[in-house]
Amino acid sequence: MQDELALVQKISRLARRALQKPSAGQVTLGVGDDAALFRPTAGHESILTCDWFLEGTHFLRDKHPPDAVGWKCLARALSDIAAMGGAPRCFLLSLALPASHTGSWLNAFLGGLRRASREFGCVLAGGDTTRTQKILINVTVIGEVRPDATALRSGARPGDTIYVSGHLGEAEWGLRLLKLRKGLARGGDSRTRKHLYPDPRIALGQWLAKNHHVTAMMDLSDGLSLDLARLCAASGVGARVEAARIPSLPISADDRRHAPDPLLLSLHGGDDYELLFTVPPRSVSRIPRSFQGVRLTAIGEITRNRQLWLCRKDGAEEPLVAGGWDPFR
Amino acid sequence: MQDELALVQKISRLARRALQKPSAGQVTLGVGDDAALFRPTAGHESILTCDWFLEGTHFLRDKHPPDAVGWKCLARALSDIAAMGGAPRCFLLSLALPASHTGSWLNAFLGGLRRASREFGCVLAGGDTTRTQKILINVTVIGEVRPDATALRSGARPGDTIYVSGHLGEAEWGLRLLKLRKGLARGGDSRTRKHLYPDPRIALGQWLAKNHHVTAMMDLSDGLSLDLARLCAASGVGARVEAARIPSLPISADDRRHAPDPLLLSLHGGDDYELLFTVPPRSVSRIPRSFQGVRLTAIGEITRNRQLWLCRKDGAEEPLVAGGWDPFR
Repeated sequence: MQDELALVQKISRLARRALQKPSAGQVTLGVGDDAALFRPTAGHESILTCDWFLEGTHFLRDKHPPDAVGWKCLARALSDIAAMGGAPRCFLLSLALPASHTGSWLNAFLGGLRRASREFGCVLAGGDTTRTQKILINVTVIGEVRPDATALRSGARPGDTIYVSGHLGEAEWGLRLLKLRKGLARGGDSRTRKHLYPDPRIALGQWLAKNHHVTAMMDLSDGLSLDLARLCAASGVGARVEAARIPSLPISADDRRHAPDPLLLSLHGGDDYELLFTVPPRSVSRIPRSFQGVRLTAIGEITRNRQLWLCRKDGAEEPLVAGGWDPFR
Repeated sequence: MQDELALVQKISRLARRALQKPSAGQVTLGVGDDAALFRPTAGHESILTCDWFLEGTHFLRDKHPPDAVGWKCLARALSDIAAMGGAPRCFLLSLALPASHTGSWLNAFLGGLRRASREFGCVLAGGDTTRTQKILINVTVIGEVRPDATALRSGARPGDTIYVSGHLGEAEWGLRLLKLRKGLARGGDSRTRKHLYPDPRIALGQWLAKNHHVTAMMDLSDGLSLDLARLCAASGVGARVEAARIPSLPISADDRRHAPDPLLLSLHGGDDYELLFTVPPRSVSRIPRSFQGVRLTAIGEITRNRQLWLCRKDGAEEPLVAGGWDPFR
């Protein structure tokens, strides 16, 4: 029990430092009681989301540096808040660790988590800890949004233009490189950065939703082909995507011999945490080419016919099959 | 992926049925989007709590019936809401299952979860699912409370009377019986009921906090000796507990040969989810002997000296050591 107490104290230092003078939209009681208390902002709804981040399924103990695990477990949950057009407020951390990982591993993990917590203004409010053999993480994030400034998956209409932020396939390519190498990933390699330290598009999501520029929005966590199929199913529509317009990543000549086709990576690679959104005709002229340094690209349009089609560069059309190609699963 | 979709659809049926016309204190967007939306009640704070419920640590696949796993994973998280004097509103379910458990096991699990959800008025708002070898569950509950009607662990003062609800040690005794038997626990045995289907004291917690009858309150999840030590540490006080007054469970003559001392069970047994609370002298006369059929018992008093003492039935006093006896850990 002494170990357990030390663990909670180590984690709660993270919370105490982040706690502020309580006011609306803030945590008024943090780690240490039966539950946390949060004071909602008047006129806002709370956004609730939770995400598994499990050793073996979502990260590998011998490949992923602990500070990347700390950063990413929060960042990917925050991506769901971004997809609703919301502002992050606080999070709960459920952490189950082997005894061997409560020292330097935990310190580095908390370091990465603290950086993400500060970067995105999301305070640790509470959580639960226990011992296990594998590292198990679950993160719940509470965000806020005005009811008239949110974006759902279900509003896409025929004729809307389909956009994505950033480049697609980068995270999956980073994972592939990481698996090819021996030992823990090193920092400083730009090719693995997006896989290890994803950057949820919170400011972009808020701007798009608040200004009513989008009819539907979601984040890209499982790859464009699968996530676009989900958005279309929720909206009762179809889509036509132009291969030539998809912002694939550039792959260097050196890497090309072991790299898959960039188009396949960008269609089916997961973990990018970019935003996928649909813009009605009246708003297309309002969408800039980039937002705070993040590229915004029109890749196709929503159709009445409920199928998904991919237009090849040579003009041929083929069905876009969700997750049709995936060497990593 | 088809399996994954079927899993989410099975779970979301539970949510749809529970969703109501949105108003304050209710879920306005449930399962199926990037996140859920909850509309807070004006003048209330949100209570946030999450709890692990893991195969091997918190339950055994070959001993605990799936509907008890479903009931208990929510009921024990609700106990934290009760301990704050709050009303439950909605919950997020994070579920990781082996493929072998997505059929009849999942159906029975969801049956138990649905019963608890209805019994305690707590609606499924969202969650996350994935595949694993072991069954992993994490439940986040959102409750609400007026800021002036909550109870913390930190308010106990010297001279306050220490109370507990119900009988203590019942759940640990139930677990012991369950481990002695072969195969899945059977329903209908009153001795294992409290271990399998705990009853969070939500109405009692609300009544005590709303009427300002308590200076401190928490739920008993890890046993009286450990939880009382936590309450005292948070309040900066000590306690003297009278062994003769602790509401231990009656153990039948038949059971006595393999049963541990009822006093030890009630001091150190976990999982009871009763309430532990401290009452200032002015309010002691306002505490009834039972509340809605649940016994309320004064078991000792808060002291200035920060130690915990146990007064034996023969008048001898000894230090009350947290978790000093525990054959199950």
